[in-house]
Amino acid sequence: MNPFTDTATDSVSALGELRLIAAIRRWLGDATPAAPFGIGDDCAVLPTSRHRPLLTVDPVVYGEHFDDSVPPRAVAAKLLKRNLSDIAAMGGRPRTAVIALALAPTTRTRWLEQFYRGLAATARAYRTPIVGGDITRQPAGFTASLTLLGEAAGPRTLTRRGAKPGDAIYVTGALGGSILGHHHRFTPRLAEGAWLATRPEVRSLMDLSDGLAKDLPALAPDNAVPSLNPTAIPISAAARTLAKRDGRPTLDHALSDGEDFELLFTVAARANHSKFEAAWRRKFSTPLACIGRFTRVLEPGALTLHDFQGYEHLR
Amino acid sequence: MNPFTDTATDSVSALGELRLIAAIRRWLGDATPAAPFGIGDDCAVLPTSRHRPLLTVDPVVYGEHFDDSVPPRAVAAKLLKRNLSDIAAMGGRPRTAVIALALAPTTRTRWLEQFYRGLAATARAYRTPIVGGDITRQPAGFTASLTLLGEAAGPRTLTRRGAKPGDAIYVTGALGGSILGHHHRFTPRLAEGAWLATRPEVRSLMDLSDGLAKDLPALAPDNAVPSLNPTAIPISAAARTLAKRDGRPTLDHALSDGEDFELLFTVAARANHSKFEAAWRRKFSTPLACIGRFTRVLEPGALTLHDFQGYEHLR
Repeated sequence: MNPFTDTATDSVSALGELRLIAAIRRWLGDATPAAPFGIGDDCAVLPTSRHRPLLTVDPVVYGEHFDDSVPPRAVAAKLLKRNLSDIAAMGGRPRTAVIALALAPTTRTRWLEQFYRGLAATARAYRTPIVGGDITRQPAGFTASLTLLGEAAGPRTLTRRGAKPGDAIYVTGALGGSILGHHHRFTPRLAEGAWLATRPEVRSLMDLSDGLAKDLPALAPDNAVPSLNPTAIPISAAARTLAKRDGRPTLDHALSDGEDFELLFTVAARANHSKFEAAWRRKFSTPLACIGRFTRVLEPGALTLHDFQGYEHLR
Repeated sequence: MNPFTDTATDSVSALGELRLIAAIRRWLGDATPAAPFGIGDDCAVLPTSRHRPLLTVDPVVYGEHFDDSVPPRAVAAKLLKRNLSDIAAMGGRPRTAVIALALAPTTRTRWLEQFYRGLAATARAYRTPIVGGDITRQPAGFTASLTLLGEAAGPRTLTRRGAKPGDAIYVTGALGGSILGHHHRFTPRLAEGAWLATRPEVRSLMDLSDGLAKDLPALAPDNAVPSLNPTAIPISAAARTLAKRDGRPTLDHALSDGEDFELLFTVAARANHSKFEAAWRRKFSTPLACIGRFTRVLEPGALTLHDFQGYEHLR
């Protein structure tokens, strides 16, 4: 469904602001608490917590993060889940979210209803109430920005810093070809991230959003490079399908497509890697691959990441 | 300055994403802490706090909240201050903010630099570090959404609910004509809001963003209407100037223009109003006016708010 309509009576401008806000409360249902703990006051008031707060923000923009082929419910699910993936990437858990929408006056009310119903369903599934928001007019397009407040799930949060030369590099799931559906169907790795934060041998963590080739350098310690084993990279079926279609190497898809929303992390060199992997497998069915390690110089036969490009947001 | 440029070399797309993010860190300077406490990781990690968190989000959109006549520094100041005004409206204090930008590829880099430098200056002035953000491409326009995390300044937060029939209605400052400059030059009433939350006779509080006529009903108790004294409404010089220009009544400007960012609150009927006002004057030079009270039926001579319209966001 296209988010916009030429039929004025089907658009949000025909509905008007007050009726639209009333409709949104209805669409969100019990995914939003009553004011001042949810939508309806100048701020949402939240309960205090003993855990360190985590704060992140990510948008979805029409023509950029989704098109007419993505159902509006899936657009909303993607918006919340890409933020949940950022919380997972710190070893945190979600608390609550606010959403800011900038809408063209021609936005189709029925599209927006499905968007909010999808947001409510995802918010319920991940126990992340939508406690506030804003709706404003913009001349054209659909831009939704969600801010997620989370908290540390335990005493430790993991960041992108902390890897040392020699540390092993791990990735969850399989990479590439996200555009075929994974980009809105993925599952944020919340349980996995929280567990990794409890493991002392895990030294750094991030989620993959722009593709391994572009994201991995963020974990690299000073004076070290990632030496990746090309045959160890987990390649998704979608990456293979795309490669057959467009003739690009499957590895290029796996490293450059972006929107994998998998976890990328490092494990101390001297840790017992088999024991760590066995503990993972007892806990999760999520695939886990050791794809290489950080070294002082590039190892023979290792991938040269410069040959691959990640997603460029402002091209 | 217009935010967009036809000269490709002057645009953010020429700069590219990585260089733009490096530039933004430079422009923000010490208004953003180092990761993971600021920009640069998947989430910002914040210190714990014993106070109840407050969360709010508000945007600025080109053509909607500002035009070419507003300097980019003032656009950014307005963005942060309108969120600070929401924190003031709960009797809270700001902690930290994240910002999501959706940019046309033709966005002028020099305009964006001034925007971020203005954001940094305002963030420093209000001790509100910018701890995270996101930048994404959108086909056209400039849409910036800021989420502000605050906390209760004391044991009590004020909300829009709490007024009872008979309660007096107060407003700070002077209303109307905001478009002549107040809409980006205003001062969020943070100290005033925090003080009001300490006063037991104050029962409800909000900030004025869409105009008194549209906003006041949110404070009305069940089965009561606001009976406003037309001569008590504080009218700004800008409202008088606009009224002279366009022939509309000054009162219409004061009640309907919107973007006043003043505080509107109610004081219990049986409180000592003179004592309350004297305490205010000892503390603040901010003008304060008692403009009427909530009554069971509209009092003779009182304003009929239905004759005035507030700002309609989706018209």
